[in-house]
Amino acid sequence: MENFSQRITSMQASPIRKLAPYADQAKADGKKIYHLNIGQPDIETPKNFMEAIKNFDEKVLAYSSSQGIPELIEAVIRYYKKYDMSFEKDEILITNGGSEALLFTLLAIADYGDEIIIPEPFYTNYAGFNAIAGVKTVPLVTEASSGFHLPEKEKIEKLITNKTKAILITNPGNPTGAVFTEEEVNRLAEIAKENNLFIISDEVYREFVYNNLKFKSFGSIPDIKDQVIIIDSVSKRFSACGARIGAILSKNKQLIAQILKICQGRLCCPTLEQIGATALYDVSEDYFKRVHAEYQKRRDILYGKLQEIPGIICQNPEGAFYVIATLPVEDAEEFVIWLLKDFDLDGETIMFAPAQGFYTTPDAGKNQIRIAYILNENDLKRAMDILKIALEEYPKKK
Amino acid sequence: MENFSQRITSMQASPIRKLAPYADQAKADGKKIYHLNIGQPDIETPKNFMEAIKNFDEKVLAYSSSQGIPELIEAVIRYYKKYDMSFEKDEILITNGGSEALLFTLLAIADYGDEIIIPEPFYTNYAGFNAIAGVKTVPLVTEASSGFHLPEKEKIEKLITNKTKAILITNPGNPTGAVFTEEEVNRLAEIAKENNLFIISDEVYREFVYNNLKFKSFGSIPDIKDQVIIIDSVSKRFSACGARIGAILSKNKQLIAQILKICQGRLCCPTLEQIGATALYDVSEDYFKRVHAEYQKRRDILYGKLQEIPGIICQNPEGAFYVIATLPVEDAEEFVIWLLKDFDLDGETIMFAPAQGFYTTPDAGKNQIRIAYILNENDLKRAMDILKIALEEYPKKK
Repeated sequence: MENFSQRITSMQASPIRKLAPYADQAKADGKKIYHLNIGQPDIETPKNFMEAIKNFDEKVLAYSSSQGIPELIEAVIRYYKKYDMSFEKDEILITNGGSEALLFTLLAIADYGDEIIIPEPFYTNYAGFNAIAGVKTVPLVTEASSGFHLPEKEKIEKLITNKTKAILITNPGNPTGAVFTEEEVNRLAEIAKENNLFIISDEVYREFVYNNLKFKSFGSIPDIKDQVIIIDSVSKRFSACGARIGAILSKNKQLIAQILKICQGRLCCPTLEQIGATALYDVSEDYFKRVHAEYQKRRDILYGKLQEIPGIICQNPEGAFYVIATLPVEDAEEFVIWLLKDFDLDGETIMFAPAQGFYTTPDAGKNQIRIAYILNENDLKRAMDILKIALEEYPKKK
Repeated sequence: MENFSQRITSMQASPIRKLAPYADQAKADGKKIYHLNIGQPDIETPKNFMEAIKNFDEKVLAYSSSQGIPELIEAVIRYYKKYDMSFEKDEILITNGGSEALLFTLLAIADYGDEIIIPEPFYTNYAGFNAIAGVKTVPLVTEASSGFHLPEKEKIEKLITNKTKAILITNPGNPTGAVFTEEEVNRLAEIAKENNLFIISDEVYREFVYNNLKFKSFGSIPDIKDQVIIIDSVSKRFSACGARIGAILSKNKQLIAQILKICQGRLCCPTLEQIGATALYDVSEDYFKRVHAEYQKRRDILYGKLQEIPGIICQNPEGAFYVIATLPVEDAEEFVIWLLKDFDLDGETIMFAPAQGFYTTPDAGKNQIRIAYILNENDLKRAMDILKIALEEYPKKK
């Protein structure tokens, strides 16, 4: 029987994950792959995560609070205080990763047929969640040439209709690496205020901002505090992607109370992972400094290496750990498949995420890839050396 | 700002969880509460869960497969083999509890405005998931007097429209305690076949069947295998509710491939909890026997005690660990609030789930409660003694 819902059939497979079978085959064939296709850092997860979990000694692994365990909520409150943002207990919901935070938020603010504006290119799963929520993704085109920064106010406002419910942004940007300036953040805040829109601000890369740029959170603008929903996660902050612990934060207590109903429907997040996540917030400031320095170094290495490869165009990313690179090929997805299937350098190859999946505008990003600089210095250098040679080989083999 | 979605505002708060603030206050006032309101067993979680997790020694807690870790999928396959059901790897998805399994299934088979038929009374969160998915819940009324068994075929078929996508059942039943006979299962299978409907069969209480009744899974009917979706969970089977590990199983590989897209969108389930859940499947047959005997004993005690209380009407439940009891009060929710706020017996009181939340038919179940027999023998007896005295006191105090 194939009478599946339209929403599921219209949902595209994750461009980050759909090439996994080619990678599996390459590994089965004995190739080593440098994975720059997924935001899975090689940074060690702080040890206090497992230590806290190992100390769990309840005899029954019971349901916990639908909102999240109080200790974790307190830890999140303390963390935000460091950034001069003050949240109360009933302004926070713990979720199964930033993913569930985003899906539940969408369901709470938009009905079937409503519209959400998202700067493009964007984190590909946004479109997937919109599809299953029956919400239309309205792309706000940003350009590689301007480092994927926002267009002027009028261009943004042109996209607003009576169906528009929110503007959804990732800041720092995935896949763009862009960090919005204070002026850009204020521009969006002004638009949200004037047009009565929610701002859904995915700030899971908050700690990863380079060039001494100052990060401005939407949580720091009192004027629109009732309209701001922050999506958070421990995944990247503490290199704990497998924990699947995220959060929704909003000063709009009524909104939080509404979303809590969905949280109650799914009962709770895993107890142990919440205990581990609570402990993560006890890491020292030194941890953040070390990790930040490591990513900044990797970015510099990657950008330097990319500039040495003929035909590659990219901007130096300002934040997160991604860069969008335009390649001297026609179809980046075909190239990535070729890298996995038909190419190797001494038994080694590389994998990227074809960037087209980060766009909804037809054919946009077709010759681009997203590179995640989540490997150590040596692996990153080696991966770029492989890319250089692969690009020399590719035209000959086609 | 209060422009929330219609789907979220139309969603009722969980009747199982919404009285929690009264319970919190009662505890703050120093009362002890016997919690029979939630399906949280006091049975110890098998120790191999924590042991497996403590052995985890990867340095990076990384994303795992969106489908679920291979070891857990293999364990689920082996478990189903014991019940003579044969599933392959690409017919199983691991989920964040049975809750996510159900939500993703709904999204995959029904669009906004479609209809799902559910025997009523039903597990209350079904209606919540339907609400946020924009799917209409069509109640199939079953009666306390017939032990909540299904009406005849014609009555069920009358509810089918061109919008109907599936029949969703819980077997053994929550909150009813009913176990469908083989004939009832075949009746539904026939209806599904003739009308091209999916059967979503929530069988998380499969092990909890009493009176030597034989449990028949929808997974055992080859004739409609493409139409059957089984919702599973380790929560009750292994008293591991806080693990939040569930599964979707279907011989319809295309359906599984569609739902996998949503699973990829939320990346993966927590790694550690999957490792623990895998180990749970290594418990001995003796574990199941002991737990089964314990619940059967509790049921017998509860039913015996209920029969001694004047004015209470209920059937002896056949499975799961719930019973719906009709009380000699007008409004069971008011009674439960009174139990928490205004009553105690030597500093102790009791809590139940008012049953009205398990119905969508207006006013149905208003004088009923759901009792979860998840406490040990002594606590259960004491709780019933308290209930008896409370029912004597209640008319006087009103």
